[in-house]
Amino acid sequence: MSWTETDFTRRLGLRLPIVQGPFGGGLSAVDLAVAVSEGGGLGSFGVHHLDGAGIREIASAIRARTARPFNLNLWIPFRGSDELSADTATFDAWLAPLRGFFDELGVALPTPPERYAPAYAEQIDAVLDARPAVFSFVYGIPSAEVLARCRELDIVTLGAATTPAEARALAAAGVDAVVATGMEAGGHRVSFLRDAEQVLTGGLALVPQVADAVDLPVVAAGGIADGRGIAAALTLGAQAVQIGTGFLACRESGTHDAHRMALLGPAAEDTGLTRAFSGRLARGIRNRFMHEIGAGPLAPYPAQGWLSGRLRAAAIAQERTDLMSLWCGQAAPLLGRSGSGAIPAAAGYLQRLVAETDRAFARHGPR
Amino acid sequence: MSWTETDFTRRLGLRLPIVQGPFGGGLSAVDLAVAVSEGGGLGSFGVHHLDGAGIREIASAIRARTARPFNLNLWIPFRGSDELSADTATFDAWLAPLRGFFDELGVALPTPPERYAPAYAEQIDAVLDARPAVFSFVYGIPSAEVLARCRELDIVTLGAATTPAEARALAAAGVDAVVATGMEAGGHRVSFLRDAEQVLTGGLALVPQVADAVDLPVVAAGGIADGRGIAAALTLGAQAVQIGTGFLACRESGTHDAHRMALLGPAAEDTGLTRAFSGRLARGIRNRFMHEIGAGPLAPYPAQGWLSGRLRAAAIAQERTDLMSLWCGQAAPLLGRSGSGAIPAAAGYLQRLVAETDRAFARHGPR
Repeated sequence: MSWTETDFTRRLGLRLPIVQGPFGGGLSAVDLAVAVSEGGGLGSFGVHHLDGAGIREIASAIRARTARPFNLNLWIPFRGSDELSADTATFDAWLAPLRGFFDELGVALPTPPERYAPAYAEQIDAVLDARPAVFSFVYGIPSAEVLARCRELDIVTLGAATTPAEARALAAAGVDAVVATGMEAGGHRVSFLRDAEQVLTGGLALVPQVADAVDLPVVAAGGIADGRGIAAALTLGAQAVQIGTGFLACRESGTHDAHRMALLGPAAEDTGLTRAFSGRLARGIRNRFMHEIGAGPLAPYPAQGWLSGRLRAAAIAQERTDLMSLWCGQAAPLLGRSGSGAIPAAAGYLQRLVAETDRAFARHGPR
Repeated sequence: MSWTETDFTRRLGLRLPIVQGPFGGGLSAVDLAVAVSEGGGLGSFGVHHLDGAGIREIASAIRARTARPFNLNLWIPFRGSDELSADTATFDAWLAPLRGFFDELGVALPTPPERYAPAYAEQIDAVLDARPAVFSFVYGIPSAEVLARCRELDIVTLGAATTPAEARALAAAGVDAVVATGMEAGGHRVSFLRDAEQVLTGGLALVPQVADAVDLPVVAAGGIADGRGIAAALTLGAQAVQIGTGFLACRESGTHDAHRMALLGPAAEDTGLTRAFSGRLARGIRNRFMHEIGAGPLAPYPAQGWLSGRLRAAAIAQERTDLMSLWCGQAAPLLGRSGSGAIPAAAGYLQRLVAETDRAFARHGPR
């Protein structure tokens, strides 16, 4: 049977079992989501950093340019993150370890904001109004009411699990499909039942365990950047793959060129996990900010992310890759092996993935 | 092409591209190596804890029972480990964190030994004399003289890499094949160019990178316990797999039943990496010894292993799984999914792997 046809692709009407990873914090881009959806995969946009109006605007912009299915992604509030506030003394203590970087970049010290992240209730209303083909989420499970509304609106829900237990929790709540996220993945570790550091399972071991644990389509994420990885993930029991770093490196993504070139160069060979940028564990290229800030003390999520976010525009403008978050998965070195160093376009990257996956499946057969 | 035929299996005359992981410290067994080699795979025996006479005895015992190829495995000396010694004050400082466990188990406190591990020069002579079909090694690269002797004796050399750089170093030295060891693997992390904690790459990302880095057969290790994993590893570019935990759980292995039952039960869902048992990073089922000793201070390798080894016989005799090393990879939960809880025999496990791999390759094909 052709590897492109699975229950997951049939249900969504996709030509390819390839989901674009839904980057947050402005790294997603309408151009990229449109290119992936038009190319036969599932284009995605991470909207956790946007308020309701921002989410509606993004959904309209994608819909204006493609009639194909697309995916909006949110972060579920986690351990009180949606209500986090701090008095001035606490805020100053959170800011203290970062003061040197504000000075170095010439950025004025911030004062406490009204909120450290957009209100979740407003975000979820906007996502439901936008009615994407797929609503994906990380760090937990939406309420029963939200999941019921998704069913009424024919929105396919896609939760994220880093353990079989998290997958079972998602299935028990009635979520439609599960992303099994191996520790190879770039960006945030999306664990919600145990601390992320305690459940760092590689995809080879995780994907079949999740496939055994739940009677739902499984999407494999983490460590996949070429067709060999796609074929391997489907062989392990996944019905689709989610590729993050590979699409982040494409020219249509919302990241900056310094980050993109790092993904395609030798720096990408050395990634690590850190809470330095957001207060939650995430994988990126090791740099000075990780080394100097990672050991803590750190503000809690989402305050640490808000604080380091105040540095970001200046770090980017000054091309200071030593102080930026350079999210990157462990498979990034597979992107540049042609040695061309050229920045790919999403359509070309999809074509490469399809050809490689065909070849991988043609190479072996049963005895 | 049948998945069982690769350059690696052809060169060694194996019927199956399956290598048994070479457990050290007494966990290997002649019965297991013979059963795997007779079953068409490559049986292995880890001899790093044995002196020359012990190695010769093991090789003779295996050879007496099978004419098929088998593999002996050694640990290469690492950062002075072969010459480690200590004065009484240093030894007492190393012993201090463990004194409570000696008391608890009723074991007399040890005095400093002549050596903390057998002499490597004696071990390597015995391995060359034994002339196994395969000599595999971890933690580095044997000398040019040893590798030249292996070529003269028609011994295939098999080194271990946790990064593409380590694979390139092995290839440059003239090693014949490379085990790409993903972070999912149970037991010791075999990194030798960087600290093991810094290079924890999952197999999905590592195996294709190593296959791209060297023009040698690659054996995938870590996170593989069923036929889906075998099919995935071959799809990623490996020519064989090395399975540790799955064979350790077989009745022929040299481990004790408490460990074996832990591998087949729910405890195996929670593994972690620790230096507590040997002074070098290794993956096992989380237990009290890891929690209480892992944070250090620790004696250097191999002294920490010698010290914790003094506790082992008593811990096993008293079935104290809270104090034993329960080496275990992240794929262990795939072993028990039949729910039978029965301890498999190696021959039956091999048959299951073959049938599952056939099914995995039959499920998908090119477009």
